[in-house]
Amino acid sequence: MKNPFPFSAIVGQEQMKQAMVLTAIDPGIGGVLVFGDRGTGKSTAVRALAALLPLIKAVEGCPVNSARPEDCPEWAQVSSTTMIERPTPVVDLPLGVTEDRVVGALDIERALTRGEKAFEPGLLARANRGYLYIDEVNLLEDHIVDLLLDVAQSGENVVEREGLSIRHPARFVLVGSGNPEEGELRPQLLDRFGLSVEVRSPRDVETRVEVITRRDAYDADHENFMAKWGAEDMQLRGRILGARAALPTLKTPNTVLHDCAALCIALGSDGLRGELTLLRAARAQAAFEGAEAVGRSHLRSVATMALSHRLRRDPLDEAGSVTRVERCVAEVLP
Amino acid sequence: MKNPFPFSAIVGQEQMKQAMVLTAIDPGIGGVLVFGDRGTGKSTAVRALAALLPLIKAVEGCPVNSARPEDCPEWAQVSSTTMIERPTPVVDLPLGVTEDRVVGALDIERALTRGEKAFEPGLLARANRGYLYIDEVNLLEDHIVDLLLDVAQSGENVVEREGLSIRHPARFVLVGSGNPEEGELRPQLLDRFGLSVEVRSPRDVETRVEVITRRDAYDADHENFMAKWGAEDMQLRGRILGARAALPTLKTPNTVLHDCAALCIALGSDGLRGELTLLRAARAQAAFEGAEAVGRSHLRSVATMALSHRLRRDPLDEAGSVTRVERCVAEVLP
Amino acid sequence: MKNPFPFSAIVGQEQMKQAMVLTAIDPGIGGVLVFGDRGTGKSTAVRALAALLPLIKAVEGCPVNSARPEDCPEWAQVSSTTMIERPTPVVDLPLGVTEDRVVGALDIERALTRGEKAFEPGLLARANRGYLYIDEVNLLEDHIVDLLLDVAQSGENVVEREGLSIRHPARFVLVGSGNPEEGELRPQLLDRFGLSVEVRSPRDVETRVEVITRRDAYDADHENFMAKWGAEDMQLRGRILGARAALPTLKTPNTVLHDCAALCIALGSDGLRGELTLLRAARAQAAFEGAEAVGRSHLRSVATMALSHRLRRDPLDEAGSVTRVERCVAEVLP
Amino acid sequence: MKNPFPFSAIVGQEQMKQAMVLTAIDPGIGGVLVFGDRGTGKSTAVRALAALLPLIKAVEGCPVNSARPEDCPEWAQVSSTTMIERPTPVVDLPLGVTEDRVVGALDIERALTRGEKAFEPGLLARANRGYLYIDEVNLLEDHIVDLLLDVAQSGENVVEREGLSIRHPARFVLVGSGNPEEGELRPQLLDRFGLSVEVRSPRDVETRVEVITRRDAYDADHENFMAKWGAEDMQLRGRILGARAALPTLKTPNTVLHDCAALCIALGSDGLRGELTLLRAARAQAAFEGAEAVGRSHLRSVATMALSHRLRRDPLDEAGSVTRVERCVAEVLP
Amino acid sequence: MKNPFPFSAIVGQEQMKQAMVLTAIDPGIGGVLVFGDRGTGKSTAVRALAALLPLIKAVEGCPVNSARPEDCPEWAQVSSTTMIERPTPVVDLPLGVTEDRVVGALDIERALTRGEKAFEPGLLARANRGYLYIDEVNLLEDHIVDLLLDVAQSGENVVEREGLSIRHPARFVLVGSGNPEEGELRPQLLDRFGLSVEVRSPRDVETRVEVITRRDAYDADHENFMAKWGAEDMQLRGRILGARAALPTLKTPNTVLHDCAALCIALGSDGLRGELTLLRAARAQAAFEGAEAVGRSHLRSVATMALSHRLRRDPLDEAGSVTRVERCVAEVLP
Amino acid sequence: MKNPFPFSAIVGQEQMKQAMVLTAIDPGIGGVLVFGDRGTGKSTAVRALAALLPLIKAVEGCPVNSARPEDCPEWAQVSSTTMIERPTPVVDLPLGVTEDRVVGALDIERALTRGEKAFEPGLLARANRGYLYIDEVNLLEDHIVDLLLDVAQSGENVVEREGLSIRHPARFVLVGSGNPEEGELRPQLLDRFGLSVEVRSPRDVETRVEVITRRDAYDADHENFMAKWGAEDMQLRGRILGARAALPTLKTPNTVLHDCAALCIALGSDGLRGELTLLRAARAQAAFEGAEAVGRSHLRSVATMALSHRLRRDPLDEAGSVTRVERCVAEVLP
Repeated sequence: MKNPFPFSAIVGQEQMKQAMVLTAIDPGIGGVLVFGDRGTGKSTAVRALAALLPLIKAVEGCPVNSARPEDCPEWAQVSSTTMIERPTPVVDLPLGVTEDRVVGALDIERALTRGEKAFEPGLLARANRGYLYIDEVNLLEDHIVDLLLDVAQSGENVVEREGLSIRHPARFVLVGSGNPEEGELRPQLLDRFGLSVEVRSPRDVETRVEVITRRDAYDADHENFMAKWGAEDMQLRGRILGARAALPTLKTPNTVLHDCAALCIALGSDGLRGELTLLRAARAQAAFEGAEAVGRSHLRSVATMALSHRLRRDPLDEAGSVTRVERCVAEVLP
Repeated sequence: MKNPFPFSAIVGQEQMKQAMVLTAIDPGIGGVLVFGDRGTGKSTAVRALAALLPLIKAVEGCPVNSARPEDCPEWAQVSSTTMIERPTPVVDLPLGVTEDRVVGALDIERALTRGEKAFEPGLLARANRGYLYIDEVNLLEDHIVDLLLDVAQSGENVVEREGLSIRHPARFVLVGSGNPEEGELRPQLLDRFGLSVEVRSPRDVETRVEVITRRDAYDADHENFMAKWGAEDMQLRGRILGARAALPTLKTPNTVLHDCAALCIALGSDGLRGELTLLRAARAQAAFEGAEAVGRSHLRSVATMALSHRLRRDPLDEAGSVTRVERCVAEVLP
Repeated sequence: MKNPFPFSAIVGQEQMKQAMVLTAIDPGIGGVLVFGDRGTGKSTAVRALAALLPLIKAVEGCPVNSARPEDCPEWAQVSSTTMIERPTPVVDLPLGVTEDRVVGALDIERALTRGEKAFEPGLLARANRGYLYIDEVNLLEDHIVDLLLDVAQSGENVVEREGLSIRHPARFVLVGSGNPEEGELRPQLLDRFGLSVEVRSPRDVETRVEVITRRDAYDADHENFMAKWGAEDMQLRGRILGARAALPTLKTPNTVLHDCAALCIALGSDGLRGELTLLRAARAQAAFEGAEAVGRSHLRSVATMALSHRLRRDPLDEAGSVTRVERCVAEVLP
Repeated sequence: MKNPFPFSAIVGQEQMKQAMVLTAIDPGIGGVLVFGDRGTGKSTAVRALAALLPLIKAVEGCPVNSARPEDCPEWAQVSSTTMIERPTPVVDLPLGVTEDRVVGALDIERALTRGEKAFEPGLLARANRGYLYIDEVNLLEDHIVDLLLDVAQSGENVVEREGLSIRHPARFVLVGSGNPEEGELRPQLLDRFGLSVEVRSPRDVETRVEVITRRDAYDADHENFMAKWGAEDMQLRGRILGARAALPTLKTPNTVLHDCAALCIALGSDGLRGELTLLRAARAQAAFEGAEAVGRSHLRSVATMALSHRLRRDPLDEAGSVTRVERCVAEVLP
Repeated sequence: MKNPFPFSAIVGQEQMKQAMVLTAIDPGIGGVLVFGDRGTGKSTAVRALAALLPLIKAVEGCPVNSARPEDCPEWAQVSSTTMIERPTPVVDLPLGVTEDRVVGALDIERALTRGEKAFEPGLLARANRGYLYIDEVNLLEDHIVDLLLDVAQSGENVVEREGLSIRHPARFVLVGSGNPEEGELRPQLLDRFGLSVEVRSPRDVETRVEVITRRDAYDADHENFMAKWGAEDMQLRGRILGARAALPTLKTPNTVLHDCAALCIALGSDGLRGELTLLRAARAQAAFEGAEAVGRSHLRSVATMALSHRLRRDPLDEAGSVTRVERCVAEVLP
Repeated sequence: MKNPFPFSAIVGQEQMKQAMVLTAIDPGIGGVLVFGDRGTGKSTAVRALAALLPLIKAVEGCPVNSARPEDCPEWAQVSSTTMIERPTPVVDLPLGVTEDRVVGALDIERALTRGEKAFEPGLLARANRGYLYIDEVNLLEDHIVDLLLDVAQSGENVVEREGLSIRHPARFVLVGSGNPEEGELRPQLLDRFGLSVEVRSPRDVETRVEVITRRDAYDADHENFMAKWGAEDMQLRGRILGARAALPTLKTPNTVLHDCAALCIALGSDGLRGELTLLRAARAQAAFEGAEAVGRSHLRSVATMALSHRLRRDPLDEAGSVTRVERCVAEVLP
């Protein structure tokens, strides 16, 4: 088995990488929705980011990778207290997945053979403390997307089915990829993703040659390639861990709150998730940059990804939503 | 686990809060339907209100939280007579919920393993004496909504399925949220909600900063925040309990009945649920205000929320239904 | 548990009450279809009428409330000969009800645990000798409506499913409510209801205040209210029982038959159910009025409810069907 | 239980009665399709005809009413040789009937409890030697109609399902009622019915009074009514039995064959079922009239019912199909 | 049980009969698709042809009628070596047939009662060495038609379902009837039928009288009728068997191959199935005529039936496909 | 059983044959999508290519044909270490196949009879180290196509269903045939096939005669035909094996990478799969030609098949995508 492609070796796609790094610093920002062409390495990037993060310590046999035996759900009957180390989980949501596979279900085998009503955990259990990746989120049924967003927000999976009444922690970062040409998400669902970014295929020869060359080296000269880029990944890991540590003591001047509110009002975004996410992402960005307080520059750096998917259609303004956010940032936060 | 956000700390949204308080005083008013943008704290408000109410006393192990052992349903075979205290239940209706999970169903496990036909109570049992919250009620299937409204009105859940013939108390306040842009409820269903209110995102910077600041304090400085607002909540609880006690002896002058009928006729609302609800809500409002008799001011205070969802479309009047109710109130109850 | 609202205390809605009383005198008239606004007390009226009728005597444990042990179906294996008294049954058909729940089905529990093929009676069994109420009959699937009308007409439920071959008496009056704005019934189905009436919300203040006042008294001063109106109900019961007794000896002059036929031909109603029902309803009306023979006045009194749902659409006549019947009655039976 | 309404007491509807009598004389003519208004006594007529025919002798316990023990299907394991007498069976096909109930199916009970693969016969078995009545045949699914027509034609029910390979005699006359306003039958299916007739509500007062009067007498004065009309029914029975006996020796002149072919060519009817049915129905009519040979008058008497449902739509000829057949008969068989 | 109607006694329909005879000589030609009116004896012809062929010798109890014990499929566990004689099988595909009934399926009974995974053969097993008849092939679901064509072409049924991995010989001639007015087959499916013919009802009186007369004699004077036409059938059988024997040594001049290719190119038929089938059918025709080599006359005789269903629509040529093939034959093979 | 038709004996269709040979040299190129008329030998070609490749050595009883016992999946419990030789597998995906049959599923038999949760491998297991052929890929459901492409790309089948958590190698070349007239594949899916080619029926007589002649010789003179063409096949096998061996040391000049990128940018193809596949296919072509380094001629030779299915629709350019690629190649790689 080859190692995942290194995060640092991904050519370009800076905004996507920034958004993923921010959620690694503060998973509370909410998921990331990546719009754009296929073949631009979205799935590769999620795997790469997870591989870059330090191994997590988890109780052996715990279905939700808990860090302490007392945090393993009761129904799992975990008796071991041995700790194991494992990579940050990345769970792929297959197309056409059913709700029971996502949330878990009655364990039919045990029900039939032993007459016991036991819970068989689903993909949400496995994703705890990691990433849940959905390719082409706009092809998923709305009620599954809604369910995923609910759990992502509450950090807890509550199962009420088939006579089961189960709950377990399910804290993960949701990463969805979407192709705007294939049917849109309902605004309600869009609004519940923390960040959104757009990716495009690079349009110049040199960048594309660089992509092919790196991919080729990864395939043909795997060990040297990993050695070289692994060092870069370790450096990035260090910055992420540093930012995580700095986050609680980061200062938030009142002017920044005003800036958040003013920007969202100017954009006419519904609800208050816009400014809450904007603030949170700006703080993570500030921590990543090593700043002591969050400021306008951090807001500017993350405004597009925090707000562009929350705009209403404006029939009089044909500009794309990214442009509209950028224009508004330039006016409100000069 | 953090405490729910305090009801008193919710910024603005006065009408939504008023409607919820009125149903806490007289649950017989019927449910509340909250229209409006996502992210405006509807779900938060329901949880906050329930947390504000005093703990209820319930028989240990009783699936419907009955206050006396003799009120526990026979099929539950509750033998304990110990009383426990628990918070007012708030039950969330998940999107895509099935009828059997709502009303209860045959307990398959016992049927298979012991050959017994036992009842497994559903969400309606759990909601007894509390709140049932439906997010995006317009996405629920009509027959589920109808079922919920039936039970909410009768206060009893009658199950006739799979050879079971079960009934149990199910008194709860139904709170639904809806987005009028996503498909409308049939007028029949609208009419069966007691009250309706609209919520919007605040449009001024100061309010929004206040929202963010409180949310931030709730997250970052939880204990102090709860201490401060908990006191306000206790005061509100006192007023609600007082109003409940005053309600039976509150006077209803005959002129008020005439006002109710005149207003509904002027508005052309179908059926008689309009004036019955209007009267009931006005009484609760009067009791909340400490009045000895219900009067025109109380009718005016609740007319919009009691009637605006009961109007027929008027193709010649482009004003929204709220405006039409307000205009009519101004004419009929000057 | 409160008593049902008294039939006599229902304000207005005279035609609906008349139609229900007629079916109480002669259930052979066929069901009643009540068109009109929600919240006008249709369901209340059915319950009220049933409560007004004398208790029925039934064999203890008999699933179809038979009056004699030998009339209990064989499959029910009723061994008791004790007679009990019980109210006239009113069975509600829930929205989304399935055919097996209506007609009865194989008792799965006994099939699984004892290998016996036993019948589990459905709602039709329970409705025997009483009322079956369907709210919003136009929302029911056509094949269920058809099935209900078949059984209502034959007075017998024949079940041929899952290897069962069962029959039992199922004599009941079918009462359906419909909202003509929500999809129409097929003319075939309309034709099979005996009577139809329209109800509307009252349009004057005094009537509406009266409704609210009575409802209020029913809620707040239950015992006195029941005492007062119970006496009126007993008087009505007396008249109904008297009419039932008088019906077999009531005379039917030949001229009345001619009037029936002439009226139906003039209206162009299809089939012969029109005149048969008209005659039957007029007789019940005559008996209710204490007449010795049925006459033109009785025909006139019931013609609208017996015929208005049997007209074909007339594209050249924009008058409603009620008006068309009334106009025709005025011409043919001057 | 009352006796069925006597066939002879049906007022008017001569063509429907004629068609039914012809199929009683020669069931090989194929089924009858009755078009027309509801409430015109179609179902009554089928029951009446079956009641008029002599009792059939059948082996006790034989699921297909066989006349000889050796004709009972092997799978039924009929051991009795006692003969019983029973009325000609009339089987109603309920709306929404499923294929397994029609053709028979695996007996689940025996499969589950005794591990045996036994056949549970369906409605086709019960209809053997009698009538199968389908109300509103145009509401049945096409594949069920096709199946019924296949069996009606072959006289045998062949079941290939769930590992069963069963056959049993299923000779019956299929009588279907249809309302041309509710969706048409495919021409392929129409063509496979032997005869078709149209019925209408009578349009003159005297006839309608007569219908009501007879219906009334049947209800109110049952025994006298049955005695009077029973005698007429016995006379009709005699003629039918006589015609059945005369049929094999009835002569068919060659000119009649030419007439059949010429008429069908003139009408442009597809396939050859038209003339085969025409000839067969004319023979039955001749036998019923006591003629020694079939002649033009018999062809004329049955041409409409044998051919009118086999015409192609003619966009240049707006006359109904009945008129077109009559016109053609007048030209070709002057 | 009567004998099937004799093949030779079928009046007219020469092309349909020719096509069926050719497939009896060389089943490798592929199936026959018969387009045209109902009631023209398509099903009768298939049964008649099969009855005309000599009995086949088959191993007793072999589910696929194998001629040698070693050819019986292993899963059938046939132990007998007794040979029996049976008619050439004709299997009817019922409308609405399911895939498992066609290909075979897990034997549920044995799975449930004995825990064995045994195969229950389907209609394809039974059709081996015979005919499979589909009435109204355009009403079958595409995937079933596709499956049938796959098996017909490969001569083998491969079952991969429910954990079974079974194969057995399934060599049969597929005969489908279709009505072009009821929805067309996809061109892909059309192309996979070997031959196609159109049948029409005869349009002259004499022919139709002849049809009725023969049918009448078949019904009324069965034995004499069979004796007379049976002799003709035996003669045809002789010619078919002779042609089968002659086929392997029949010569195919190179000019004939050129003719085939030239004709198909001129017609613009896709793929190469056209010329392969044309050649094969012409050889069978030559063998039937007793020729030593296939020649242009044989190509001409079969060109329409081998090619007319393989043409693309030509929007500039309104002639039917049969006419287009005939015109092209006249030009290319003068 | 006859041998498959020899690959070398296929007349024409050079591009299809080239594409298949390239995937035999480097399966990592990804699948081949063959567009075009039916009856042009697509399925024949896949079988022929697989038959041409050397037998593979596989562990006896290993469900995924592994070459070493330690590579057999654990769940298969393969204990044998005997090696067997078997042809390169070719697995056909039947129309209407279900996901469980493709990926494998719980072995119901073992679950029921032994209470064990065992895995029953599906078609993907069987296809390992071989070919998976889908006829009419545009008729498959999108989620199955997606699943197949996922597995084809990752080389591993991961099953998460019914409580199973299984993985096994599934390296195969996916060959799909499609008819562009029957509904298109989504661009996302198209992009994931490595190569695409179009096939057409030959349009000249000589070629078609050659096709018929060879097919005839294959049928009639099988052994001589196989002997003749088998020798050609062996020669081709030698070249393929040689190319496989040469591939790792083949040189890739930097200019070729630039050519790849420049061509893809000029064509405006989304994502980077275009140039990666182009490069890989060109290398395989170079190795097949015995070159030491890949060059422009190789790019030119494979550009159409690697890129033509990746173009966006260009509403201003009516040329087909093949023409557009050829034009662009002529400009960019002159």
